[in-house]
Amino acid sequence: MKRFTKALSANEILAVTGGTWQNAMPASFDNVCEAGEADSASIVFCEQERLVESVSKSPAGLIITNAQFAANFGERPLLITDKPYISFMRLVAWWLAMDQAHLPWGIHPSAVVDPSVRFDGEVAIAAACVIGPNVTLGKGVIIAEGCSIAANCTIGAGTRLYPNVSIYEDCELGKKCVIHSGVVIGADGFGFILMDGIQQKIPQVGNVVIHDEVEIGANSTIDRATLGSTIIGKGTKIDNLVQIGHNCVIGQHSILCAQVGLAGSTIVGDYVYLAGQVGAAGHITIGSKAMVGAQKRYCGQHS
Amino acid sequence: MKRFTKALSANEILAVTGGTWQNAMPASFDNVCEAGEADSASIVFCEQERLVESVSKSPAGLIITNAQFAANFGERPLLITDKPYISFMRLVAWWLAMDQAHLPWGIHPSAVVDPSVRFDGEVAIAAACVIGPNVTLGKGVIIAEGCSIAANCTIGAGTRLYPNVSIYEDCELGKKCVIHSGVVIGADGFGFILMDGIQQKIPQVGNVVIHDEVEIGANSTIDRATLGSTIIGKGTKIDNLVQIGHNCVIGQHSILCAQVGLAGSTIVGDYVYLAGQVGAAGHITIGSKAMVGAQKRYCGQHS
Amino acid sequence: MKRFTKALSANEILAVTGGTWQNAMPASFDNVCEAGEADSASIVFCEQERLVESVSKSPAGLIITNAQFAANFGERPLLITDKPYISFMRLVAWWLAMDQAHLPWGIHPSAVVDPSVRFDGEVAIAAACVIGPNVTLGKGVIIAEGCSIAANCTIGAGTRLYPNVSIYEDCELGKKCVIHSGVVIGADGFGFILMDGIQQKIPQVGNVVIHDEVEIGANSTIDRATLGSTIIGKGTKIDNLVQIGHNCVIGQHSILCAQVGLAGSTIVGDYVYLAGQVGAAGHITIGSKAMVGAQKRYCGQHS
Repeated sequence: MKRFTKALSANEILAVTGGTWQNAMPASFDNVCEAGEADSASIVFCEQERLVESVSKSPAGLIITNAQFAANFGERPLLITDKPYISFMRLVAWWLAMDQAHLPWGIHPSAVVDPSVRFDGEVAIAAACVIGPNVTLGKGVIIAEGCSIAANCTIGAGTRLYPNVSIYEDCELGKKCVIHSGVVIGADGFGFILMDGIQQKIPQVGNVVIHDEVEIGANSTIDRATLGSTIIGKGTKIDNLVQIGHNCVIGQHSILCAQVGLAGSTIVGDYVYLAGQVGAAGHITIGSKAMVGAQKRYCGQHS
Repeated sequence: MKRFTKALSANEILAVTGGTWQNAMPASFDNVCEAGEADSASIVFCEQERLVESVSKSPAGLIITNAQFAANFGERPLLITDKPYISFMRLVAWWLAMDQAHLPWGIHPSAVVDPSVRFDGEVAIAAACVIGPNVTLGKGVIIAEGCSIAANCTIGAGTRLYPNVSIYEDCELGKKCVIHSGVVIGADGFGFILMDGIQQKIPQVGNVVIHDEVEIGANSTIDRATLGSTIIGKGTKIDNLVQIGHNCVIGQHSILCAQVGLAGSTIVGDYVYLAGQVGAAGHITIGSKAMVGAQKRYCGQHS
Repeated sequence: MKRFTKALSANEILAVTGGTWQNAMPASFDNVCEAGEADSASIVFCEQERLVESVSKSPAGLIITNAQFAANFGERPLLITDKPYISFMRLVAWWLAMDQAHLPWGIHPSAVVDPSVRFDGEVAIAAACVIGPNVTLGKGVIIAEGCSIAANCTIGAGTRLYPNVSIYEDCELGKKCVIHSGVVIGADGFGFILMDGIQQKIPQVGNVVIHDEVEIGANSTIDRATLGSTIIGKGTKIDNLVQIGHNCVIGQHSILCAQVGLAGSTIVGDYVYLAGQVGAAGHITIGSKAMVGAQKRYCGQHS
């Protein structure tokens, strides 16, 4: 159960969700939850047959549902919309954004911020962070504790880093990105050449460019390019423990599920869906709107 | 070789292991090791034919073995028990617990601990930790350096966090859990809906509930539920780099080997064994005592 | 594009690469890049047919190529060598080493360094690091922010740790190793025995020994041995998100690509190549110079 600090009245809810009331209009609510854990201040939703029984039995104070399912819930307070789940989700997102405590604006005294760092407005930098020379931080950037941002990085307005993120030098993050704990951006691409019996390191002097509204899950790793840039397109969402090799180029609004691994120079189009643990060999192209099933090894069309 | 600070006499050893002495009763010991690295103060064990030669040749001061194998070791000091490996393991665990340096009780001056944090007894909080509002820490909790515990979390008595662990808000950890470095607990579940050409984020307002005596390996990630809780049952052990998706429910005393990935809403029973790199599609159930071989993709009985 | 602080003259370049000039000898250069992003101060290379067109069109000030390809580039300034890519790479590595900012020698005031730590020369320890008792650091060791080095570890001369690395007690790292962000070395091996209905922990009192010139990618995990040592041989290179179980022994100059997982006690020879997401069952041997394709499950010759 998510109990919010600020309770909402029925009218405040209606202003966010749209739709119409049916039956008594209740007083106020302070939480959203699954039916099984509801109380009289809870808001739940029902848009699927399999949820009808548990929602009926629950003491939830408000049920967001549609005209088809409304008959199951008799005289109880209902909010009727065309797409109950979407309405519910929109309400929760709005409520959460309003309610969520975030770091106070400003720089924690224990953070180590190079004097050359540029701020394009208010930012929040938590304890034990280190921000290197010539970094630029957009307005509203939130950097939680233990993050490391190396020299020459740029982070766009409204982007949020959760604790213990590491970003190597020269990388660029767009606006409104969300980077979860433990993510590493810009570590060296994995390139070695066997010469004279030794694996000689190929120097990795490219960078990583992440466009706006990208989300990257916990402990994922995105390597810098050998030359040029490893690129993540606008609006693409990456789950936990994903590996993106050097010089990969990923399009817009794609979905990469947990533990996917892309070898170096993989090209991925727009609106692609890669299920969990998919591996892509390097130097291949996965076209836009492709869907790849779990654990598949993708060695398709060579670029 | 593990050399302990405190040496043990033969009688102290016997008090832990039980069993009987055979041949001369030696003076004292200060380490446990493999036969190949032993010295005269070493304790080794032998319960397998393949170890007889290396143990015989080693200068180890004490051999824990059973009646069957004893004949191989002539007049050397032996400790005879029914289950030599178990006896050896019990001795090492006891010795390690007695010997292991841990953080001094108290809060390091560089830790940032919200004034609202509640302590149910002595705790140890190391340097560069951040503990958020309304967190509750049980007696004997040890939090190593660089950990982040966000608002409203509860951590049970005797639980230990290794360095650089990140726990997001509202999560609950039971008693006597062990959380290794780099673990991320409670990051957002991976849920998006494609609307109007954009991957809209489904807000993730559930939490993670971890029951007593759970161990979680380095850099594993356990996502918070969308609504409700992602649950890890009592005594379950999770290896490194494992991904547990939102709303998974895992039973008691199960074993999840390295790099296992469970998609959202996977149900796993009690005493289940998932070998390395197993992937489970979401919304399935893996029954109690199931064993799944390495790298298998599990898409069994739908729940 | 990697723009270096220090520009190079043609003669300085020649001193590093060898080879011969063809056409006009240009003034100076300050960057290396892909052809598509070049400017007149850029150095690019061409050793492959597929690059001829983009290099021809680019305004790059200098092209490193060979006699065969030179005819494609008319009167432009060329540096002719037998192996253009190797020459280019050598130049970049040399330039980067000369140019790369690194931490100033010394210990940041917010680092917590036990008084018993031994230094065999100048070292750099950044903010928010914790270095435990009886650690030994070789000359020129660089430890970036947020690293944790537990008691009794040894780190050889010239080894570099990127931010947020965690090393558990008793581990040994050789000289000139590179450890990327989020790596965890020496966490407990994953060993449990089911007794009386409970997964009893097998105490893990071995360590990890990493030889010289090993590189370990971001968020990889290398577990300590149960007894004895988990060993990574000289010059072996490990990519991101790789799992090395307890008591594995890996030879020299091997390559382990991203998301490889080795179960406990896997033996890997010299010059082995394991492609991405390969899994090796425990207690097997992978012979020297073996190559294993992506995602293969390796259960070969039992040791």
